[in-house]
Amino acid sequence: MERSYNFNAGPAALPLDVLKKAQSELTNFKNSGMSVMELSHRSKEYEEVHNRAQQLLRELLNIPENYEVLFLQGGASLQFTMVPINFLGNGNGSYVLTGSWSKKALKEAEKIGKTTIAATSEQTNFDRIPKLNELSIDDNASYVHITSNNTIYGTQWQAFPTVENLIADMSSDILCRPLDVSKFKLIYAGAQKNLGPSGVTVVIADKNFLEKGADNLPTMLDYRTHSKNNSLFNTPPTFAIYMLSLVLEWLKDQGGTEKIQETNNQKASLLYNVIDESNGFYNGHAQKDSRSIMNVTFTLPSDDLTKQFLAESKELGFVGLNGHRSIGGCRASIYNAVPLESVEKLSEFMISFQKKA
Amino acid sequence: MERSYNFNAGPAALPLDVLKKAQSELTNFKNSGMSVMELSHRSKEYEEVHNRAQQLLRELLNIPENYEVLFLQGGASLQFTMVPINFLGNGNGSYVLTGSWSKKALKEAEKIGKTTIAATSEQTNFDRIPKLNELSIDDNASYVHITSNNTIYGTQWQAFPTVENLIADMSSDILCRPLDVSKFKLIYAGAQKNLGPSGVTVVIADKNFLEKGADNLPTMLDYRTHSKNNSLFNTPPTFAIYMLSLVLEWLKDQGGTEKIQETNNQKASLLYNVIDESNGFYNGHAQKDSRSIMNVTFTLPSDDLTKQFLAESKELGFVGLNGHRSIGGCRASIYNAVPLESVEKLSEFMISFQKKA
Repeated sequence: MERSYNFNAGPAALPLDVLKKAQSELTNFKNSGMSVMELSHRSKEYEEVHNRAQQLLRELLNIPENYEVLFLQGGASLQFTMVPINFLGNGNGSYVLTGSWSKKALKEAEKIGKTTIAATSEQTNFDRIPKLNELSIDDNASYVHITSNNTIYGTQWQAFPTVENLIADMSSDILCRPLDVSKFKLIYAGAQKNLGPSGVTVVIADKNFLEKGADNLPTMLDYRTHSKNNSLFNTPPTFAIYMLSLVLEWLKDQGGTEKIQETNNQKASLLYNVIDESNGFYNGHAQKDSRSIMNVTFTLPSDDLTKQFLAESKELGFVGLNGHRSIGGCRASIYNAVPLESVEKLSEFMISFQKKA
Repeated sequence: MERSYNFNAGPAALPLDVLKKAQSELTNFKNSGMSVMELSHRSKEYEEVHNRAQQLLRELLNIPENYEVLFLQGGASLQFTMVPINFLGNGNGSYVLTGSWSKKALKEAEKIGKTTIAATSEQTNFDRIPKLNELSIDDNASYVHITSNNTIYGTQWQAFPTVENLIADMSSDILCRPLDVSKFKLIYAGAQKNLGPSGVTVVIADKNFLEKGADNLPTMLDYRTHSKNNSLFNTPPTFAIYMLSLVLEWLKDQGGTEKIQETNNQKASLLYNVIDESNGFYNGHAQKDSRSIMNVTFTLPSDDLTKQFLAESKELGFVGLNGHRSIGGCRASIYNAVPLESVEKLSEFMISFQKKA
């Protein structure tokens, strides 16, 4: 077997066709006589890659004209700071807490200014997304921040709140389904789950909203620097953006977000069905109405069985099934690029493991 | 001809052997059943890559034990902000201005606190590095910041000042020669010239110095976050670090910094000799005692001749010879990975072009 069944939580599986394409032109990109990594970021060849990636994102997510598409660095973790220093001002940053990443985002905002918690599911170890009517938004909210999918807990927003100045960390589920971008003022996503390799962060933001950012910020932390310069103010992570463009071409070839959502639903159902039909042998962490189609989290009846499950699955070529230490158990991350076949193999293994146990 | 003669200023040429190695294992890294891009950053396979890159940097630059080696994101441009917010405090940031990049670094520090200019060569369009005895360091200096090599102007520090709390941007010449790291408290370098592809920034810093950073900084902008977590606080740009490790292996195979310095001197001499023996046809921008062995900048007698030079060189497969708009003319960037053969071809072309003109 050449390829593993890759269920890594991120960095994660990439489409094999994308890797093969990158491999085929790694030493000579489009007859330029050099690798895409060796191109100047000011060259026509590179700018085509850069602009194509933007254009594909616009097409795939139907991004309105009045939104910017930026390619930044530093991952979601740096966005946790950029959002409040640009937009918090004298108002309140209103955060919905649905897991570790939302809490980290809140922590960084607290260093910058005032914050409130609009809702939280921490009481039940983040096993659900708060209902839309549970949200308590401060009158003085500068923005409302949510995490659309929670990798560690396996929960995902099924519908988004209609509130002013909504900002979302979509690192782990962007492009998993169609999206109404116009509901958001700013969306950010580290690439290493659904978009490409680690090292590039996609930001999609309302142009007018960006213009309202604070003054006299460090140049690199001011979104306007990057919007004014088409994300070419400084040298961008060119190879990561190239890989992003290939992943987006691949997604377009798959039929786009509607088609990938069907496949994602099919993949997720395979695993959730095994869980639901296991008579409690597999126990899903997320409440049913909050289940993620990107990360399926579950526990087994004992730590010994969990260890055995992980050991046997590893023998069979499954990678990345360990759950995060904060909830234990197992996790299957089934991002866009994880083939249906891998998920079928996993569901078969889960059934046969239960029978033997 | 498959490969161009690549004289790009950055992103720049990479060793062909490095690209071929990356190509050979792009879909299956060391029998892991996946690309290095698909590995979890918490996996043993990736951690080996990460730690190997650190270890090679330590070996090649003879980095003392009490220094950290960090892999960050955002390029030198983000370091321009991280340095002052961590270390400026109530003192003065003392900047030596030797070109556009030093000025950008100063500009970011001015947003954070007090600064002084220790020396500048702006009066003569940055054609030289200030002499060590020209430096005027404020008694209250928090640190002294220099740019070791100036890509746009083609100048390079030949020896470094002995001052307290020296910080250097070495983006464009790190590893071009042996270095006494202990003279510096902190060195930073975007990778895309001598180290690898764009998307990773190397920081080498005195551990005690890092500990003295300001309190309550945004987590991602605090160097201690990254030193405490072995640069794995958040997902690092894993593929860029992998490429860095391959470039460092290559450099070790070449014989390390002493040997590469010899080759670099040989390459630079080839071009400077053509300039010096051209009876003023080619006019070097940098004063002789400040010449860079990484970027050779020169002008021709007229704009028409410059255009013709660039057009004919392009026809012959030379790439990236345009000078930066701030000084015009031509520039040959001859970083470590630019083969001697490319430089020989360029010197031959320069001689024949002059004969015809």
